[in-house]
Amino acid sequence: MLVYGRNVARDLLNKNKRIKKIIIQDGFDDKDIISLIEKQKLSVQTVSKKEMDHLSSGVHQGIILDIPDYSYRNLDEMLQDESASFVVLLDHLEDPHNLGAIIRTCEAAGVHYVILPRDRQVQVNATVMKTSVGTLDNVSLVSVSNLCNAIQKLKDNGFWIVGTALDNSVDYRDIDYSGKIALIIGNEGSGISNLVAKNCDFLAKIPMYGTTNSLNASVAAGIMIYEVIRNRK
Amino acid sequence: MLVYGRNVARDLLNKNKRIKKIIIQDGFDDKDIISLIEKQKLSVQTVSKKEMDHLSSGVHQGIILDIPDYSYRNLDEMLQDESASFVVLLDHLEDPHNLGAIIRTCEAAGVHYVILPRDRQVQVNATVMKTSVGTLDNVSLVSVSNLCNAIQKLKDNGFWIVGTALDNSVDYRDIDYSGKIALIIGNEGSGISNLVAKNCDFLAKIPMYGTTNSLNASVAAGIMIYEVIRNRK
Repeated sequence: MLVYGRNVARDLLNKNKRIKKIIIQDGFDDKDIISLIEKQKLSVQTVSKKEMDHLSSGVHQGIILDIPDYSYRNLDEMLQDESASFVVLLDHLEDPHNLGAIIRTCEAAGVHYVILPRDRQVQVNATVMKTSVGTLDNVSLVSVSNLCNAIQKLKDNGFWIVGTALDNSVDYRDIDYSGKIALIIGNEGSGISNLVAKNCDFLAKIPMYGTTNSLNASVAAGIMIYEVIRNRK
Repeated sequence: MLVYGRNVARDLLNKNKRIKKIIIQDGFDDKDIISLIEKQKLSVQTVSKKEMDHLSSGVHQGIILDIPDYSYRNLDEMLQDESASFVVLLDHLEDPHNLGAIIRTCEAAGVHYVILPRDRQVQVNATVMKTSVGTLDNVSLVSVSNLCNAIQKLKDNGFWIVGTALDNSVDYRDIDYSGKIALIIGNEGSGISNLVAKNCDFLAKIPMYGTTNSLNASVAAGIMIYEVIRNRK
């Protein structure tokens, strides 16, 4: 997987993460990063700006790293971790900025697992790495093939399932979050799917006073996650 | 100003906003948008995908619109609006996704004014338009040349100034937000500046339990804005 940007590079180099290859732009002059590369005796390929732009799909800031693909965990592993009493599920998010920001919020809030479906859902890529920089070490991503099966398994293990929805829902401040909680964040455009909503124990609504009635998915996740935290810590 | 994307196009066309020019990609086939264009008898230029990519700096989805630049309001105008009792200030944000998401959150929360400095601060551009689509009609952006002068003026008009900071701050849930509130959101990397922090009546901290101690700016803004709302509505 190719990732890029100076913050991402600095973080991976500082943590001695496995790096398969480093590609820098001709004239790259970040002394801090260059000294980290030299210290680890990593081999470096220098290419033109044009080639860098071609290799990356975003702002690379002169450095691209080729690293092993992200290793997802599985649900059974997670369920064996007894400290996992508050987890977040993503119902087919599309935007990597949202996934990155949600991972970052989970890390800050002390949520250690994010469950996401394998298909029709943005996975860990360069933009996610950039947005969540430094936080993926403390949050494990759990990949599942079917979200409803995962929800059933969570229920069997004592979790209460809380989804967010505008219809048939109660004010998010009126729910008791003191038990084991699995919070579901819906897709940016369509929210959580009908089948997932049917499987929820609670549907929560963040009150809105405007005309558009929709928050950015990572903002809604942040408000909900900190509401759960408020009830628990 | 060039803006792009189908949601933005649909929103501007539906609202009969002034559009100077429309550029579509050869083969563009969104029937809904094409019929809106035809209804308004707008002239359209068709160009190649390569040219579209060159004109836009993000995902254009085959349509680019040239619209008048955003018209910022000024602070004195805002202060004459007596309904403005909760406003948000941005202390030199850099990321257009954050500005767009904050505008969206303000609209949802019923906050009608966002104050931002003229320099070293991301302004309304195509990415902001995309992220905040449909919400800029209900939120006015107020441009100021100096943030500290603006804060002083807000104080003179009875506002309490609340900043977010990790040091010398109190838990964000322990502040009384019932008066007129101006909430300051800091820069993505460095937070709010020292001078701005010194001018705050309260410094609020969102508790964090991880190692990185930083939330995405728009997520932090969302949590803070909804905390103020909780105290008021």
